[in-house]
Amino acid sequence: MKPIERLRALDAEAKLLEHIGAILGWDQETYMPEGAINERADQLAFIEALSHDKATSPEIGRILDDLGSTEGNPGGPESLPTIDRAYLRVLRRTYDQATKLPSELVSEIAKATSLSQAAWVEARKHDDFQAFAPHLSRMLEFNKRIAACLAPEKRPYDVLLDQYEEGSTEAQLTEVFGALRTDLVALLERIQGRPQIDDSFLHRPCPAAAQAEASAYFMKVLSFDSRRGRLDTTEHPFTTTLGDSDVRITTRYIEDYFPSSVFSTIHESGHALYEMGIDPSPEYRRTSLAEASSMAVHESQSRLWENTVGRSLGFWLQHLPRLKQTLAPVLDGVGLEEFYRAINRVEPSLIRTEADEVTYSLHVILRFELESRLISGDLAVDDLPGAWNDGMKRLLGVVPPNDASGCLQDIHWAMGSFGYFPSYALGNLYGAQLWDAMKAQGLDPKASVELGDLGSILSWLRTNVHKPGSMYKPGELVERVTGRPLDPSHFVRYLNDKYAGIYGF
Amino acid sequence: MKPIERLRALDAEAKLLEHIGAILGWDQETYMPEGAINERADQLAFIEALSHDKATSPEIGRILDDLGSTEGNPGGPESLPTIDRAYLRVLRRTYDQATKLPSELVSEIAKATSLSQAAWVEARKHDDFQAFAPHLSRMLEFNKRIAACLAPEKRPYDVLLDQYEEGSTEAQLTEVFGALRTDLVALLERIQGRPQIDDSFLHRPCPAAAQAEASAYFMKVLSFDSRRGRLDTTEHPFTTTLGDSDVRITTRYIEDYFPSSVFSTIHESGHALYEMGIDPSPEYRRTSLAEASSMAVHESQSRLWENTVGRSLGFWLQHLPRLKQTLAPVLDGVGLEEFYRAINRVEPSLIRTEADEVTYSLHVILRFELESRLISGDLAVDDLPGAWNDGMKRLLGVVPPNDASGCLQDIHWAMGSFGYFPSYALGNLYGAQLWDAMKAQGLDPKASVELGDLGSILSWLRTNVHKPGSMYKPGELVERVTGRPLDPSHFVRYLNDKYAGIYGF
Repeated sequence: MKPIERLRALDAEAKLLEHIGAILGWDQETYMPEGAINERADQLAFIEALSHDKATSPEIGRILDDLGSTEGNPGGPESLPTIDRAYLRVLRRTYDQATKLPSELVSEIAKATSLSQAAWVEARKHDDFQAFAPHLSRMLEFNKRIAACLAPEKRPYDVLLDQYEEGSTEAQLTEVFGALRTDLVALLERIQGRPQIDDSFLHRPCPAAAQAEASAYFMKVLSFDSRRGRLDTTEHPFTTTLGDSDVRITTRYIEDYFPSSVFSTIHESGHALYEMGIDPSPEYRRTSLAEASSMAVHESQSRLWENTVGRSLGFWLQHLPRLKQTLAPVLDGVGLEEFYRAINRVEPSLIRTEADEVTYSLHVILRFELESRLISGDLAVDDLPGAWNDGMKRLLGVVPPNDASGCLQDIHWAMGSFGYFPSYALGNLYGAQLWDAMKAQGLDPKASVELGDLGSILSWLRTNVHKPGSMYKPGELVERVTGRPLDPSHFVRYLNDKYAGIYGF
Repeated sequence: MKPIERLRALDAEAKLLEHIGAILGWDQETYMPEGAINERADQLAFIEALSHDKATSPEIGRILDDLGSTEGNPGGPESLPTIDRAYLRVLRRTYDQATKLPSELVSEIAKATSLSQAAWVEARKHDDFQAFAPHLSRMLEFNKRIAACLAPEKRPYDVLLDQYEEGSTEAQLTEVFGALRTDLVALLERIQGRPQIDDSFLHRPCPAAAQAEASAYFMKVLSFDSRRGRLDTTEHPFTTTLGDSDVRITTRYIEDYFPSSVFSTIHESGHALYEMGIDPSPEYRRTSLAEASSMAVHESQSRLWENTVGRSLGFWLQHLPRLKQTLAPVLDGVGLEEFYRAINRVEPSLIRTEADEVTYSLHVILRFELESRLISGDLAVDDLPGAWNDGMKRLLGVVPPNDASGCLQDIHWAMGSFGYFPSYALGNLYGAQLWDAMKAQGLDPKASVELGDLGSILSWLRTNVHKPGSMYKPGELVERVTGRPLDPSHFVRYLNDKYAGIYGF
């Protein structure tokens, strides 16, 4: 066996274990009886420690060294095939990150995370931040320890950000988000100067069964391959990969707000299409190359399908008749323009996942600010609810009446994910830039959507974004595909054009 | 850490992995998308090999030796506490069996089994025995290799039987089943001499949703703890343990025969009550002592709840009104006696799991005969469909019109389980003997059922059968609890009394 093949075989064992962990995690969120939580935490901790052991096997380090991969030149000599160089680069990064974490710490984190998630579900249900606070403190401590293990010389939050979006820093994001915030606030002001849209019909009671039927329909419309995935319901929608042909998404059915399930199903399907579209060739299959380039690139896919496609007039020209039929009589008497305007109504609100395209990034900016302060110690856990509410007032002009719709709304921190939130806003920026690149390359995606031809868009995304997996770093990928480095102006222009039409200014 | 505690810790790791394997297996049968089957087979093989490695760790062998456990005296010196001696006995048996199987073989079997099960589902759906035959051959070969590893000096089928029911042999079962068969045939003849019962109303169309509601109701009636388990639907009903507080059962909804789901739910709940009732103390928890005494004892529990309780007049005196309400209008106009007679209608039929109490054991005897011949090589795989049909004609007087309702009906052989079927008939015998023991000990279980008090029966079973786990060998357990060795006359007497009343002779 050639060294690179041996590397792939070792990597494949670590991936197998990761997927097994994903099965346990998926089951915990969907069907597991509550009494099983303690043993499940042990099961997850056991698998994650084992997966960590595999990923940190000294043999991997030796082969990487032998092949000429170093921290300074992770891809090794230029004489190697491009795909092998990319693979060495990805594996060197993963290996270096993983070997810096002791397996006891990994196991301890996995167990605590399982309990933390369960505590978050309860705390959110009973609006009891204090019950969740000790878990949040533990998750913060773990993240600081992770950062200290990975790069003790760097600012901890920068280390955490880099895990999700290679190369991003607090300083850089402060700049990008600062500019974005200015433009969003300006746009929001123009919108708030216009008469508000009536979207009351979106809140008509709509049974879960009808919403489930609609979800199944939209998955089909997006070419979600149901032989390689499925949809279930959970507290918070997510996408998870349980195998190279097993990508599962979840949604939730809110009886008096059906758009929540419609758009979260489209959003998660967007994530799943990325995972399902990665190159299945032997050089990729069950290796670290068969992963997304970054969290933000992942979000660019989910949000492109949810918003750029799913909230466009052309999409509903095609699909509103079917939705009306499926949800009947909920949308009786509602016209296309009226529906389009309602699902794009802009209004500062409390819940990030239900926020409109314009205010959404402001929710993300709030989380970015708070989590960087939580990590630096500038903000104490006990002061989080207050700081959250102040931030909401400052950025969006609204204050949550309770923590369940405030700082307890997202699962991320409960899962120990700090540095992840910025990816959501970066995803918007990447998505808009990709959309414009399609146009520059002769595609007319807007016209395709109007004609019900989503295939040409998916096909372009597969070739350019999905298939390469983590072959390219996120910044590199965007530049390769669009010909330019990240440029937030595409997103701002897209929003200005769209909302000028909707609000008439 | 004391050696016995170290033993429990090592054992607990093996159990943790077994439970993880059970999660993967449960998901495969319930929700897994079809495209995931190949990777799932690899995942299962990986976990089973790991679990096998843990269970065969040389450290376990060393501690067993150090504590004085030998093949001849597995419990070790009499000076040890009773519970420790029982534990050493169980672990010595498991350890000796497992160390005799090479881990490559275990892994190979796990992978082949996963594919075999999937092939069986398809073969049964398309009534295509030939598509399944190569998998069956592979399963047979594996079983012969297992037997050769475990006890090369013994007859292979005896070795396989012993895995499920310690100490049973083909010769002994031939004798017990021979006597049973004579009595059953005599009873069947008396029944067939009487006018047949009309049960046509049981075949009225009944939607799955109503059956699901009935299943939930009967789980509650039986005190199934839904915080520690759940119900799902699969091709073939089963019970599986995913953790010490995670016992899951499945059923299937046949639209034109609702009793199938009602009684399979009660049956699987009976299995689950056993698993949930095992002593939760630290000496048992997550060790090999926290397992059933044997497959047949397990079946005694499921069949006691399904038949002795669930098909009694007293049970339906309590629960028919609610069932009629849940399934309305399916049972409109059906009276108690009429319902009781219909669900106990005796008629030779094709499907084991749908068979009545009288003919059921004849189905088992057929499988016992065929599998012993498949293992000995006396019967070739290609000749199985013919031999099956001949046997059905000979024992039950009916011939399946196709293999889907013939030799493809059960999952057991597809899962590689040979030597398991006899447990079903032994379970009937144990169950009847336990029921009579309750009476001898002053309980009136029949009266309790009539009063809707299932708690006193469950409580007796918990104390006497469930709590001890595998503390006692099956024969020992039955003798301890009932004061006598296995005696088939209890079951025969029970059937004769019951069916004399129903058919009036």
